[in-house]
Amino acid sequence: MLQKTNRLTLVEQVALQMEGLIESGKWAVGMRIPAEPELMVELNVSRNTLREAVRALIHAGLLKTKQGDGTYVCSSSALGVVLQKRILRSDTLKTLEVRQALEREGAHLAAQRRTSEEARELLLQLERCEAAAARGDIDGFVAEDIRLHQTIVAASHNEILLELYDHIAEASQDSITSLTRYEVKADFLEIHRQLVEAIVGQDADQAAAAVHRYISESKAVFEGREEEQR
Amino acid sequence: MLQKTNRLTLVEQVALQMEGLIESGKWAVGMRIPAEPELMVELNVSRNTLREAVRALIHAGLLKTKQGDGTYVCSSSALGVVLQKRILRSDTLKTLEVRQALEREGAHLAAQRRTSEEARELLLQLERCEAAAARGDIDGFVAEDIRLHQTIVAASHNEILLELYDHIAEASQDSITSLTRYEVKADFLEIHRQLVEAIVGQDADQAAAAVHRYISESKAVFEGREEEQR
Repeated sequence: MLQKTNRLTLVEQVALQMEGLIESGKWAVGMRIPAEPELMVELNVSRNTLREAVRALIHAGLLKTKQGDGTYVCSSSALGVVLQKRILRSDTLKTLEVRQALEREGAHLAAQRRTSEEARELLLQLERCEAAAARGDIDGFVAEDIRLHQTIVAASHNEILLELYDHIAEASQDSITSLTRYEVKADFLEIHRQLVEAIVGQDADQAAAAVHRYISESKAVFEGREEEQR
Repeated sequence: MLQKTNRLTLVEQVALQMEGLIESGKWAVGMRIPAEPELMVELNVSRNTLREAVRALIHAGLLKTKQGDGTYVCSSSALGVVLQKRILRSDTLKTLEVRQALEREGAHLAAQRRTSEEARELLLQLERCEAAAARGDIDGFVAEDIRLHQTIVAASHNEILLELYDHIAEASQDSITSLTRYEVKADFLEIHRQLVEAIVGQDADQAAAAVHRYISESKAVFEGREEEQR
């Protein structure tokens, strides 16, 4: 499975190989990586070299050591780890603006590129959101709403846009969820229906305009909350 | 300068401290970091611990060792390093789409938030672009154009948008520059003037529309080039 490496920057090469195994999913998130003696043999490296490489990946946020147990994969993406660190230092309003930028472009491209399969899935997912809202299940609505937005951005067929969107959405979810905690407003649902129908109808400008409307609304709610707290 | 650290995850703590020094600019890009004996004393750690921490930052792309010389700071941002790695694996068209997402939102917010100082700077920068184009100085135009776009996104007053934009623009510059290699078209300049005037005139929708126009044009040129090469 692992290739043997030459001397020059041994630690770095071992770290890159392990990073490749993680990013490709061969070492999946949650998995315990093989024990030191096994990896030392497979890679033909010393214990010190191996440990330094593991440390590098711990620092990158991809691995985590559990005392007396072993080393586990805790994230599959170095980009995800640094983006999430960065988002935690940013204020929610500014994060919403970045999310809007990615969602608007995502919706615009989705309207141009969605397959008919994706159009069906979007309509289904919208119905799941509406059903959760109708039965007053706020947590259920939040979960279905996240999936709806991911499905939209995925239909843009732009992997880097989706990757950035997913990491930023994940990192900002808690603060954004707090906006919808109290109730799911009827006009919020209506805008989501307009958005999905625009994408299904391949109307890129309408889709982008719908994203603009619901993010403007979220920002207004957010700014209102901040006012209240003063 | 450096705080002494306790035992628990010593390597990780030392790495985080050094990362803080780099991100804050105290250890600037291009600088050689202090020699091992000096850092060992300051941090009260062993040579092995220090070396492992340095390796972690080399893996993160922040430090680089020059054989027989020392260790240098080579980047100030872990986010920049991973984003650039990711962009190198993406195709240019998809990178352009992400850039468009960030620029459109940047221009939209800049129109709402630019100070009068920033408005003056934008007009000046536009004139520098136009002057370079007028004297047929393509390299000069490319450089001034990059600065113009950075100035626009900076006027959004959203640091995370600017940070993402700067890293993505930097990583994709070579492929995008190749689009403008041949000539600077008059209508390309005209769209830039419309963009700057919309921001100066605080017309957010016009600003976003202008970004949309020039990116559509770049995409069309790019797709045309790809066709030619077949």
